[in-house]
Amino acid sequence: MQLQLCTWAEVEAYLHKGPKAILMPIGSTEQHGPNGLIGTDAICAEVIAKAIGAADGAMVAPTIAVGMAVHHMEFAGSMTLRPSTLIAVIRDCVMSLAEHGFERFFFINGHGGNIPSIRAAFYEVHAENRACRGGNAPDLRCALANWWENEAVGRLSKELFPGVEGSHATPSEVSLTQYAYPEAIKHVSMSPQVAPGGGFHDARDFRRRFPDGRIGSDPSLARPEHGQRLLEAAARSIAGQFKEFVAEA
Amino acid sequence: MQLQLCTWAEVEAYLHKGPKAILMPIGSTEQHGPNGLIGTDAICAEVIAKAIGAADGAMVAPTIAVGMAVHHMEFAGSMTLRPSTLIAVIRDCVMSLAEHGFERFFFINGHGGNIPSIRAAFYEVHAENRACRGGNAPDLRCALANWWENEAVGRLSKELFPGVEGSHATPSEVSLTQYAYPEAIKHVSMSPQVAPGGGFHDARDFRRRFPDGRIGSDPSLARPEHGQRLLEAAARSIAGQFKEFVAEA
Amino acid sequence: MQLQLCTWAEVEAYLHKGPKAILMPIGSTEQHGPNGLIGTDAICAEVIAKAIGAADGAMVAPTIAVGMAVHHMEFAGSMTLRPSTLIAVIRDCVMSLAEHGFERFFFINGHGGNIPSIRAAFYEVHAENRACRGGNAPDLRCALANWWENEAVGRLSKELFPGVEGSHATPSEVSLTQYAYPEAIKHVSMSPQVAPGGGFHDARDFRRRFPDGRIGSDPSLARPEHGQRLLEAAARSIAGQFKEFVAEA
Amino acid sequence: MQLQLCTWAEVEAYLHKGPKAILMPIGSTEQHGPNGLIGTDAICAEVIAKAIGAADGAMVAPTIAVGMAVHHMEFAGSMTLRPSTLIAVIRDCVMSLAEHGFERFFFINGHGGNIPSIRAAFYEVHAENRACRGGNAPDLRCALANWWENEAVGRLSKELFPGVEGSHATPSEVSLTQYAYPEAIKHVSMSPQVAPGGGFHDARDFRRRFPDGRIGSDPSLARPEHGQRLLEAAARSIAGQFKEFVAEA
Amino acid sequence: MQLQLCTWAEVEAYLHKGPKAILMPIGSTEQHGPNGLIGTDAICAEVIAKAIGAADGAMVAPTIAVGMAVHHMEFAGSMTLRPSTLIAVIRDCVMSLAEHGFERFFFINGHGGNIPSIRAAFYEVHAENRACRGGNAPDLRCALANWWENEAVGRLSKELFPGVEGSHATPSEVSLTQYAYPEAIKHVSMSPQVAPGGGFHDARDFRRRFPDGRIGSDPSLARPEHGQRLLEAAARSIAGQFKEFVAEA
Amino acid sequence: MQLQLCTWAEVEAYLHKGPKAILMPIGSTEQHGPNGLIGTDAICAEVIAKAIGAADGAMVAPTIAVGMAVHHMEFAGSMTLRPSTLIAVIRDCVMSLAEHGFERFFFINGHGGNIPSIRAAFYEVHAENRACRGGNAPDLRCALANWWENEAVGRLSKELFPGVEGSHATPSEVSLTQYAYPEAIKHVSMSPQVAPGGGFHDARDFRRRFPDGRIGSDPSLARPEHGQRLLEAAARSIAGQFKEFVAEA
Repeated sequence: MQLQLCTWAEVEAYLHKGPKAILMPIGSTEQHGPNGLIGTDAICAEVIAKAIGAADGAMVAPTIAVGMAVHHMEFAGSMTLRPSTLIAVIRDCVMSLAEHGFERFFFINGHGGNIPSIRAAFYEVHAENRACRGGNAPDLRCALANWWENEAVGRLSKELFPGVEGSHATPSEVSLTQYAYPEAIKHVSMSPQVAPGGGFHDARDFRRRFPDGRIGSDPSLARPEHGQRLLEAAARSIAGQFKEFVAEA
Repeated sequence: MQLQLCTWAEVEAYLHKGPKAILMPIGSTEQHGPNGLIGTDAICAEVIAKAIGAADGAMVAPTIAVGMAVHHMEFAGSMTLRPSTLIAVIRDCVMSLAEHGFERFFFINGHGGNIPSIRAAFYEVHAENRACRGGNAPDLRCALANWWENEAVGRLSKELFPGVEGSHATPSEVSLTQYAYPEAIKHVSMSPQVAPGGGFHDARDFRRRFPDGRIGSDPSLARPEHGQRLLEAAARSIAGQFKEFVAEA
Repeated sequence: MQLQLCTWAEVEAYLHKGPKAILMPIGSTEQHGPNGLIGTDAICAEVIAKAIGAADGAMVAPTIAVGMAVHHMEFAGSMTLRPSTLIAVIRDCVMSLAEHGFERFFFINGHGGNIPSIRAAFYEVHAENRACRGGNAPDLRCALANWWENEAVGRLSKELFPGVEGSHATPSEVSLTQYAYPEAIKHVSMSPQVAPGGGFHDARDFRRRFPDGRIGSDPSLARPEHGQRLLEAAARSIAGQFKEFVAEA
Repeated sequence: MQLQLCTWAEVEAYLHKGPKAILMPIGSTEQHGPNGLIGTDAICAEVIAKAIGAADGAMVAPTIAVGMAVHHMEFAGSMTLRPSTLIAVIRDCVMSLAEHGFERFFFINGHGGNIPSIRAAFYEVHAENRACRGGNAPDLRCALANWWENEAVGRLSKELFPGVEGSHATPSEVSLTQYAYPEAIKHVSMSPQVAPGGGFHDARDFRRRFPDGRIGSDPSLARPEHGQRLLEAAARSIAGQFKEFVAEA
Repeated sequence: MQLQLCTWAEVEAYLHKGPKAILMPIGSTEQHGPNGLIGTDAICAEVIAKAIGAADGAMVAPTIAVGMAVHHMEFAGSMTLRPSTLIAVIRDCVMSLAEHGFERFFFINGHGGNIPSIRAAFYEVHAENRACRGGNAPDLRCALANWWENEAVGRLSKELFPGVEGSHATPSEVSLTQYAYPEAIKHVSMSPQVAPGGGFHDARDFRRRFPDGRIGSDPSLARPEHGQRLLEAAARSIAGQFKEFVAEA
Repeated sequence: MQLQLCTWAEVEAYLHKGPKAILMPIGSTEQHGPNGLIGTDAICAEVIAKAIGAADGAMVAPTIAVGMAVHHMEFAGSMTLRPSTLIAVIRDCVMSLAEHGFERFFFINGHGGNIPSIRAAFYEVHAENRACRGGNAPDLRCALANWWENEAVGRLSKELFPGVEGSHATPSEVSLTQYAYPEAIKHVSMSPQVAPGGGFHDARDFRRRFPDGRIGSDPSLARPEHGQRLLEAAARSIAGQFKEFVAEA
């Protein structure tokens, strides 16, 4: 169930009958190398969340499409919220849903750069919940799953793209978006075939080290059919994590 | 062109060849009466923006799906950003795109409650641009079009739903989402047929006056085929406004 | 009754006996063309609020004299709060008065540029009231009247200054300040007689389009006696709106 | 010269010919005991600033009428900005005027509770000026004069109200407002004649210790003619301080 | 007792048996002239607080080591929080301890530049306490002692360093740090022997007037044995103030 | 070298001759089980940073002693900054030092709960640096080392406390503080011997699951001599990381 496609009465019914839990997809809008879409991280988080929601009947919140991507700002089209803004957005979204009785918030994240802000926002939620409601504060719980960080996806990535998965603009994420948006598959030659790897600091440093935006990857190997398998593996694995989170005492 | 479905190199090319303008859809995630979707305002803004982008080749930013809806918070599923958060989001989005050279930002808005925050954010953008860059600040311009506020849409609404358009959970917006998401058409009986009209103050006041969420409307008349006509009328009209905005000296 | 000229015991008595309502004048401190005072918008809001307060016995809060005027900052003497600051000011003022039992806040506004921040602040008030007090939150209501936006003032402006009222540094507002501060009437020749009209974006854009600060107006026609009539028309009309607001169920 | 009563061209001329200095009156809107006006602190700061401006031709900014008065909030009608809001207001006011070339800002303060926020704001101004403009930052200078803290006023208070001046709702400040607003003189009996003295903590503590709002004072001795002498003493003394501030290398 | 060296159970016991009061040392990290340590203000506040805590069994919170020092930023190594940040830090620290039942917060301050932010933070604490908890808010009390502002220290400074104490990088504070950190005594010649005195505005102005960082002082006279005497005088005097604060009804 | 124990001239010299790098210890002030000190995390970060600074001549900033510990707030004495406050503190500290020419900031962290805020702050630093200085922004680099996350410390913990290290109030961190503050060693019996392990959500949830504050650990095994070995292992390992960070192109 997608929150956006429900009526308020349907949400009320959902809260009455079942676990007061919701999936919160969050991504980013930032460069993803020569053939990766700017929306890659938002798309991945969204399609996985919707797949889980469709299979399990879990409610899915609208995707937070713009995340924290200050280190990508030397590439055209990248958008970023300041960490403080993103924290405020997550806090407001969670606190809004908590007003209706939602108690468990499971974030499905598509972007590594979001992690600190998401985790900081969880603490901000707990602080605000405590400050505003004191002893009557509801028991709110937040969890975070980065879609690429589970055994199933890790194994499949290694099988499909041995040694060239890299860490940004990966063939896995590009495949997943190709499966989701086949009309937007880009055919671009890249050189070198495999991008240099490593860490980085600010946006200028990122561009200097990774001139076409990729880190350690060969996304020319991306294929929509690989994307389908990755989506299924991710959805299955994360649905399991979500079930455990909901069942947690 | 959707920003999310472009590569960064495509955005760079767009900025080199044409007007440095972008469409920014913004909606809300809030109750829309017995048969209206919670995502109505975000869906309307998004489909209209995409229609214009598809027809004109204009770049379309990702939709800001959660807006300012504090007055809807007594209905399950409604989400809201505080005005201060929404202003920060808009400021960060505009300033990010301005770093790449975008200069004209045309917001297509689906929700009346967003208007003050959007307009306040425009001033915040101008203030920040001035403070940070002084005399070297780029010439940024922001404009706002509420999709339902144009002659073409007004005329069509009156023709299709004479006297029962109302001002929230309108048959026009419900029709538009029915056309966009036919799988999510809800069949719900309502009583009274036409909701009471009038103003409101805070969320409790809203609920007291408008117990099922509608204001002055009969959205049971919504039909997807009406939605299609409304979409086309809105897109044509707003595309014209956008063209003028881009051409403005 | 002016709050500034009461003792606290008088305010307490006012709250016990009557409607828990207050008039909140808000203006701006910004250029108003060749012969308009920088304080025009604050003066207009203040004298109208005081006139209503004197006639009706309604309480009048101190004027918020500096508003949101970022687009006037290329003219010497203009002052502006950032929208976020102005929102905080309004929120603090309303929440302070609410602590004493005031429940209805009627803003009399002298400046178009304030509107988004005022309306955003109303939502911020509702959000804060809800977050802090939960189910025990008092029923706060806020309303906004722009002094020039009513039938009586509109009709009079058209009669006195046909076709040359314009939209900034208007002969109506200049007249009103001339009536209020006859010692500060300025005799300045202007050219062209009627300023160019139209919209604008940021401060530099404003100055480029409207080099002497006026928009579409001929304020050389301003006269104190016209100001008196405008003041009376505005006060009568807005007093009526206020009465309705107070009586509202 | 009052900024509110000038045109922008007059401000421009002022900045060209003379010291780029401005008087900034700042007060508070808070209880002042049985016969003191809620606006006492704003009125005192304003009339002194205007007297100096009238005598010296110095520019006078609009009064910041609502200050930091959180400790007075148990008395009806008191208004307060949070310190963080007041700091933002002062920062925005100063930075606005600095854009036009003002360089020296002389605050005339009517309320002890404002002092920390004003001084903190001065540092915030310096921090922001430095952060935004780096080496090109203009040389901004801010000074603060509490109107009652000078030898002349101290001597006169002692002479007029020996031993009963106290520290809040003083006969001096009440006299000054009586002179400024003779129509608002209140005749209220008080008991005890002289209020208890001492310090306080939060608003409840204040009310408990000082049930009618006065601290250590007997404001029943206030007289408009004393107010006139106090105003003249204060204006003369502070005008001297201002002159030194302007002349400072 | 130092909070940092207690277990939580020891803190719980402390709160059960005694006054719910705590000493809060706060300093700064900023230049202190040719032979003064950058940590001077934090060290002074800390050693005095610890001495009182050791003698009286009072709880001592961890030192806030970085304060508000924007005016020292032209000297290498100086660190500053913006006033708004420092206010937030103090508010969070006090509110945290208040959650456990602490009610009286006695700040021992080492730096004049902190005073406005500390006092503004006290008001912010009271405002927040009131907003969050309403009528159930605990009675929080905050007090501030600047270690150098008491009769005992004043007398001793005058005796040890007649006429050359000055107001920044004073021989007294340098002596105190020499006693606390004998391994960090610096032997530096200075010229002129006694630094020029006077006031200052922003950081550049400070550097221009006081090129080696001292104001009005001759810290070459600092000696560790003087520091010991000053420490003892300060601790004794401030312990007395603290005792009164704790005993206050 | 400790920044607090240097003069400004020594810092200037340091910046001229060597790498413009600084060690930034950051900890927390929060419960650490029955025998752990509330200052454990701040103490560990500080002594390790000082050990590295003493060995290598690297500059060491003052310790940020209060961190983000909202989940420990059900235990007396725990203090916490909100994530937004901690981010502001880190941003201000880094930006201050950057004004003097420091370019590389190496945080030595003692508390897992700080990690999101620290990493979010790094992004905030990059965003602010970019916004304020544009193309002229200096190349700032920030790195984070959690003292317990390196091969040497991990191996030693396993050897000394096999299977009972746990994840909060660990025998390793308690040992380290015992070595640093032998006068504050606590002898407390605990039951069960080994605390339950697992995750947690907010503060109430933490207390419910871990009633004495420990997670999965047996800190009764802590000994000062183990602490010494752990300190040496940590300092050696992290000194190596720091050297690489400084040498990084």
